[in-house]
Amino acid sequence: MTQKINTSIKTLGPAKVKSPLPVCRFVDDEKLISMNISPEMLGEEENGPLKMLFEEAGPRQNLYFDPSKTKCAVVTCGGLCPGINDVIRSIVMEAYHHYNVPSVLGIKYGLQGFIPDYSHPVMELTPQNVSQIHEFGGTILASSRGPQPPEEIVDALERMNISILFMIGGDGTMKAAQIIQEELARRSNKMSIIGIPKTIDNDVNFVSKTFGFDTAVEKATEAIRCAHTEALGAPYGIGMVKLMGRESGFIAAQATIALKEVNFVLIPECSFELQGENGLLPHLERRLKNRGHAVIVVAEGAGQELFERKGADPSGNIILGDICSVLRREIDDYFQEKDIPITLKFIDPSYIIRSVPANSNDRVYCGFLGQHAVHAGMAGKTGMLVSMLRDRFIYLPLTLATLRRRTLNTKSNYWGSVLASTGQPISMLNKCCEKNN
Amino acid sequence: MTQKINTSIKTLGPAKVKSPLPVCRFVDDEKLISMNISPEMLGEEENGPLKMLFEEAGPRQNLYFDPSKTKCAVVTCGGLCPGINDVIRSIVMEAYHHYNVPSVLGIKYGLQGFIPDYSHPVMELTPQNVSQIHEFGGTILASSRGPQPPEEIVDALERMNISILFMIGGDGTMKAAQIIQEELARRSNKMSIIGIPKTIDNDVNFVSKTFGFDTAVEKATEAIRCAHTEALGAPYGIGMVKLMGRESGFIAAQATIALKEVNFVLIPECSFELQGENGLLPHLERRLKNRGHAVIVVAEGAGQELFERKGADPSGNIILGDICSVLRREIDDYFQEKDIPITLKFIDPSYIIRSVPANSNDRVYCGFLGQHAVHAGMAGKTGMLVSMLRDRFIYLPLTLATLRRRTLNTKSNYWGSVLASTGQPISMLNKCCEKNN
Amino acid sequence: MTQKINTSIKTLGPAKVKSPLPVCRFVDDEKLISMNISPEMLGEEENGPLKMLFEEAGPRQNLYFDPSKTKCAVVTCGGLCPGINDVIRSIVMEAYHHYNVPSVLGIKYGLQGFIPDYSHPVMELTPQNVSQIHEFGGTILASSRGPQPPEEIVDALERMNISILFMIGGDGTMKAAQIIQEELARRSNKMSIIGIPKTIDNDVNFVSKTFGFDTAVEKATEAIRCAHTEALGAPYGIGMVKLMGRESGFIAAQATIALKEVNFVLIPECSFELQGENGLLPHLERRLKNRGHAVIVVAEGAGQELFERKGADPSGNIILGDICSVLRREIDDYFQEKDIPITLKFIDPSYIIRSVPANSNDRVYCGFLGQHAVHAGMAGKTGMLVSMLRDRFIYLPLTLATLRRRTLNTKSNYWGSVLASTGQPISMLNKCCEKNN
Amino acid sequence: MTQKINTSIKTLGPAKVKSPLPVCRFVDDEKLISMNISPEMLGEEENGPLKMLFEEAGPRQNLYFDPSKTKCAVVTCGGLCPGINDVIRSIVMEAYHHYNVPSVLGIKYGLQGFIPDYSHPVMELTPQNVSQIHEFGGTILASSRGPQPPEEIVDALERMNISILFMIGGDGTMKAAQIIQEELARRSNKMSIIGIPKTIDNDVNFVSKTFGFDTAVEKATEAIRCAHTEALGAPYGIGMVKLMGRESGFIAAQATIALKEVNFVLIPECSFELQGENGLLPHLERRLKNRGHAVIVVAEGAGQELFERKGADPSGNIILGDICSVLRREIDDYFQEKDIPITLKFIDPSYIIRSVPANSNDRVYCGFLGQHAVHAGMAGKTGMLVSMLRDRFIYLPLTLATLRRRTLNTKSNYWGSVLASTGQPISMLNKCCEKNN
Repeated sequence: MTQKINTSIKTLGPAKVKSPLPVCRFVDDEKLISMNISPEMLGEEENGPLKMLFEEAGPRQNLYFDPSKTKCAVVTCGGLCPGINDVIRSIVMEAYHHYNVPSVLGIKYGLQGFIPDYSHPVMELTPQNVSQIHEFGGTILASSRGPQPPEEIVDALERMNISILFMIGGDGTMKAAQIIQEELARRSNKMSIIGIPKTIDNDVNFVSKTFGFDTAVEKATEAIRCAHTEALGAPYGIGMVKLMGRESGFIAAQATIALKEVNFVLIPECSFELQGENGLLPHLERRLKNRGHAVIVVAEGAGQELFERKGADPSGNIILGDICSVLRREIDDYFQEKDIPITLKFIDPSYIIRSVPANSNDRVYCGFLGQHAVHAGMAGKTGMLVSMLRDRFIYLPLTLATLRRRTLNTKSNYWGSVLASTGQPISMLNKCCEKNN
Repeated sequence: MTQKINTSIKTLGPAKVKSPLPVCRFVDDEKLISMNISPEMLGEEENGPLKMLFEEAGPRQNLYFDPSKTKCAVVTCGGLCPGINDVIRSIVMEAYHHYNVPSVLGIKYGLQGFIPDYSHPVMELTPQNVSQIHEFGGTILASSRGPQPPEEIVDALERMNISILFMIGGDGTMKAAQIIQEELARRSNKMSIIGIPKTIDNDVNFVSKTFGFDTAVEKATEAIRCAHTEALGAPYGIGMVKLMGRESGFIAAQATIALKEVNFVLIPECSFELQGENGLLPHLERRLKNRGHAVIVVAEGAGQELFERKGADPSGNIILGDICSVLRREIDDYFQEKDIPITLKFIDPSYIIRSVPANSNDRVYCGFLGQHAVHAGMAGKTGMLVSMLRDRFIYLPLTLATLRRRTLNTKSNYWGSVLASTGQPISMLNKCCEKNN
Repeated sequence: MTQKINTSIKTLGPAKVKSPLPVCRFVDDEKLISMNISPEMLGEEENGPLKMLFEEAGPRQNLYFDPSKTKCAVVTCGGLCPGINDVIRSIVMEAYHHYNVPSVLGIKYGLQGFIPDYSHPVMELTPQNVSQIHEFGGTILASSRGPQPPEEIVDALERMNISILFMIGGDGTMKAAQIIQEELARRSNKMSIIGIPKTIDNDVNFVSKTFGFDTAVEKATEAIRCAHTEALGAPYGIGMVKLMGRESGFIAAQATIALKEVNFVLIPECSFELQGENGLLPHLERRLKNRGHAVIVVAEGAGQELFERKGADPSGNIILGDICSVLRREIDDYFQEKDIPITLKFIDPSYIIRSVPANSNDRVYCGFLGQHAVHAGMAGKTGMLVSMLRDRFIYLPLTLATLRRRTLNTKSNYWGSVLASTGQPISMLNKCCEKNN
Repeated sequence: MTQKINTSIKTLGPAKVKSPLPVCRFVDDEKLISMNISPEMLGEEENGPLKMLFEEAGPRQNLYFDPSKTKCAVVTCGGLCPGINDVIRSIVMEAYHHYNVPSVLGIKYGLQGFIPDYSHPVMELTPQNVSQIHEFGGTILASSRGPQPPEEIVDALERMNISILFMIGGDGTMKAAQIIQEELARRSNKMSIIGIPKTIDNDVNFVSKTFGFDTAVEKATEAIRCAHTEALGAPYGIGMVKLMGRESGFIAAQATIALKEVNFVLIPECSFELQGENGLLPHLERRLKNRGHAVIVVAEGAGQELFERKGADPSGNIILGDICSVLRREIDDYFQEKDIPITLKFIDPSYIIRSVPANSNDRVYCGFLGQHAVHAGMAGKTGMLVSMLRDRFIYLPLTLATLRRRTLNTKSNYWGSVLASTGQPISMLNKCCEKNN
């Protein structure tokens, strides 16, 4: 029998203020969306089908906050990603134009912006000064990495008298949002904390696709095309492209099937060996012998089984072994030993991928994320983030998003198609299609 | 109580041949996907919730056709659309590389290619000659419009001894596919007819997004950006952009929220008036007076209520009134009468939008469409098309796709957001949000 | 014997103020640049070689204006062109950062901005508010067409107490600049008038390439590529692209050799016939019969010999016959009569070409134009414009620039290469290579 | 008094065959172009003005080779550069379509392609198989680095019975061309060797701009824009971009003035210090303190005075010290010592810059290079290359091109403008503007 799980969103209190929005758009809090969920998403072993009920995102007829007295704030944390400015713009436009909120503050340089020691100035965000920011990459609020003391953050929020804080950031930021929300609850402060998940790796639990992903894939294919051209241009040419993906290979996989010129794709989800019958190096040699060139796409977190654990950085992220350096050295050594002169060109397009403006698809997506975030905040919801799951916008408890990182399902037809498009032998990758093989 | 409707796909006979594909990827014919469907999609009045069951797309373990004796053919019909070459390429690669099919023929110039009178040559499609076609827009097979006698088409298919015919085209083509399939059934010919829906208007029933749509929107936003620049560049500047959309405003709506510089968006789904309190012209005047410039996006099928019916063209498409000419003339007259000197710049980017290569998103999509089409054909399915409904690939009976044209739901939050982003008064458009207003 | 002609630039008076610029960059007024000039450029019959001497553009050691008391103004007139914002930005940056000028005013909506009746506000231009304008097409100052009374313009300039007026515009604007300069001289007003030639047609006398031309050609090739794709996509497909060029075919010619997919190029400099042995229509028929498709590029001013004269518009520009409409109708009729079913797709990309941001080449060029304009103005030069002739930046008397419009030399190897790349028979075009044929 | 130097092009013998080209396009061998030349270009000390006379490029009325018996070959050597395929295409089209040459061979993998040991196959180049290659980056002939024995090359040329060899390559290739031509002369072999200079660094003597330069700058500005976005996005953000330029800073300089977001530009022509009053590091600190972020563009050959000499690679190129690694380490150390937390993002876009297709400007240029190369070869010229000097196409003896490498004139107004656009203090760079300072 299918298990049914209800997700419920925290609220600051009863919503009694009439929404100023045009009436036709209201969504009912009670109208839950039911979806089949893989038990893995709850961090559980596979134990039969699961149905979860989610709150639909959208404008509510009754608000918790009186718009005319609401003060919003926006902060952007972590690395860049296409579309951040679109989300900021959308929040500001929705708050000002549709809810008539009088003030939206921009916190500069991520969580640092809350800490008096850094003395980063706060920035007033108005429809006028955000109207063209979507034409530029990056974030006009700038960002920073690493945590800051939650008490100090809450102190700052109280000093500024914020009603709703919008936090745009990755896994660490969503965890920080949770702690801040708990600290606010402890202080009985009626402030709403709304998360908008941002990660170039596309690895947020219960989020089918994070914003900026499409744009990143588009730019990644440009780098792969160049790697292919370079590989074709030299005797035994090898083009290697490093793509984002610390714990998951989403960009690498999607870019691979988007361009169709990749011969080997290495992702964190599938371990592999360098030497031996199923090793990358002999397979690469075979490819070069047969076709004269090869293109290799490597997610940055691939092949970590080849390294010893290295501890974590200040933000708590595991320090990754530099797989591309290892691969380049091993490839050089392997072919030098065999006296086969290769020409390897390595491209690391990371900053060129993540700092461009969003494409149309991501723009539309970012626009909705910002609007739904404002709807949620105004209705007094808190401790949640806005997610697109499958093709629906939902409100999701922060706790579900931070439960684990999403990874690519290597038993899926999707991954099967990725492998098929490379021509890479399935046997080369461990943990892939293992159940059926 | 919810009604449950089972869709079933026709087959040519029992599938007894073992598939040569790597085993892990098989999909079970019996594994149906259940989705909530709006009754409108079945052409019915709203009468309570509806659940439909669809066959999941994907490779089948058992095939109807023996790959080594299978001969495929591909034909492309109707207007251009980004991604056609990607679909062709994907069909050829899947058939050759994964099923080891010995021959894929390309029929030139659409259905004309079947008719001996035209003597268009047939083209052998091989992995080598399709390997780079995805870098070019259009279709390497070329296309034509209008129907051809189904008997002659079937005669030609029999002469060529085709096992599976892949038909890439729009509503008319899917209807032709149905007739061809029926003619084949009448002759007891065991040939499979598989459709792949192609329409720049994105208006196929039971298909959430047709291929090329994302790319078209991306290019459309470039035209809108130019219209905005032109509007800003002159006193009382008006930029008008005509976009595709004969019966539906999908591209116009999506491009509008993607760029956020549009002030009026006109689509076929919402009638409007030119004069009077809620007329476009007085609203336009107000906008110009307040802001000095305006951008208008017009789907080509908008405002047809302003014209008398004009009959149909040879392909059976209703001849549309030229709404942009009317608007340009009416705007000129209106402001001339009021002695307000305006500068109107008109952009019709149609052929620039539809003839470019696909972007990454569409490439991935087209790749799957082609693969799933081959899987279906090899398994002996027929009289169906490959669809992406919500975020799932399904096999859909042709009859369901051709039941009606899909239109934009003007009572949705999506359309509400489009209107909100323009600032255009809801009262200006009829039939929009009417239920709740 | 070669005739030597000295061009001399008017000055407001002796330059006695020491320039604040870093010393290494000064250019000597006396250092003239000698160039061989075709007598046509002076509107003369060919009568032997001509040598002209030009003043080199660049910073002068001694200035006429005291920077701390200088007030500049910028106005942009006529149609849009890629790079206008780059020129504005460059003027502002050079004036503020290098000369420490305290104020640069932006006149809005072209010459209208000087006329009180229009009450267009004046805009203060600062390094901060122009710093990112080069990322946008168009002109932040907006523009308008048509002349305004020179006395009123000079009155306005005197009221605002302008020292240097930078006029960015086309042929009409340069003529207006001349009249304004003469009116100032009549009033003994020591104000400098500096022109920066802007025309998408690239037809300014004594200017080898106007800014925005490279960008326009790049965009034009995109439209031609689409026309080619459309032509290939249909039986007897014809793609027709209309490009700018009222009296000269520079964009049409350059885009033709840039993309190499054009089969017929029609420019104002070469008349042609529709019917008859050397007519376009029979040649087009031959091409279609041989290759199945054709691409035609038409400069808007081509084929005017097929029309009666139509008078001039308010700006004094001759009203052109609509050659593309004529061609489309004639082609339709010709092939209909012969019962040959063609498919003609017409693309008019004009506003998409001229309203985009400048590419890198044009940006560099616009940067220098702006700087050299400021250098000239500060040194007290007037009645001149900044030109790039061959590969040198020079100061040019307005009188020389407005003497005539530049046209493409149809006896040159350049035009020969354009024709060769199309495969279009030379005999089809009159006045081309006639001397040698 | 001005010295006059005549450059003369070697010929294989009297040209007696009538050219099949349309007559109007012929250029006279005797028609020399006179240009003022800086003595530095001849490797001489400055000793007064110099005038040189060059042969104009273009079709000749009389040919040395009988087209119907001529066999051409093309080889591409060294690294990739945008536009190589355009040059190949142009050579093939000109030879086939205009001269009716029956055969053009493509030598694969550079000079290796001549050496039997490598057994690289030769490729027949026809109008059909090159017609779309200009839409792709790289070279369809592939390339390799390093020299090969000239005797073996000449042996191979004789075996293949080549009439004209077109060599597309850099400095090393032009030197090889010279040696091959001398070896041919020694053997009294009447074969023509025509060079087409290709270098992404733009450093060929007597060539104003090498093909692909404009495209490379365009792509370089994209990387700089990303670096700027990254720098703005973090507290004390530094964006560093490495650009091509082993001995000259042309790309770095041009990209700097094209985008205007660069704060420090480092090129091989100007040495600099890291520490001390005029050191980069203190200047960088000042910039960060004032503005919060900084963008640094580094030509790969900059700062070599900070390294010990490292010898040369097999191709004879000096091995460069890795200046960016040094800068990144020194910057890290400097600010760590001062306890100023910076965020440095490093972008190396090299392979993304050089492997893209050419833009329109480069396409037109490459088209002419290929045509002029064929004209020269058919006329029996040899030991020369095709150059664009200033704005003229000329034929240049190989000896002049290989005399030295071209470098950026750091005393020019051009370089002054580059520095001015960065705001970088002139005092920071040695050897810049030194004469006047």
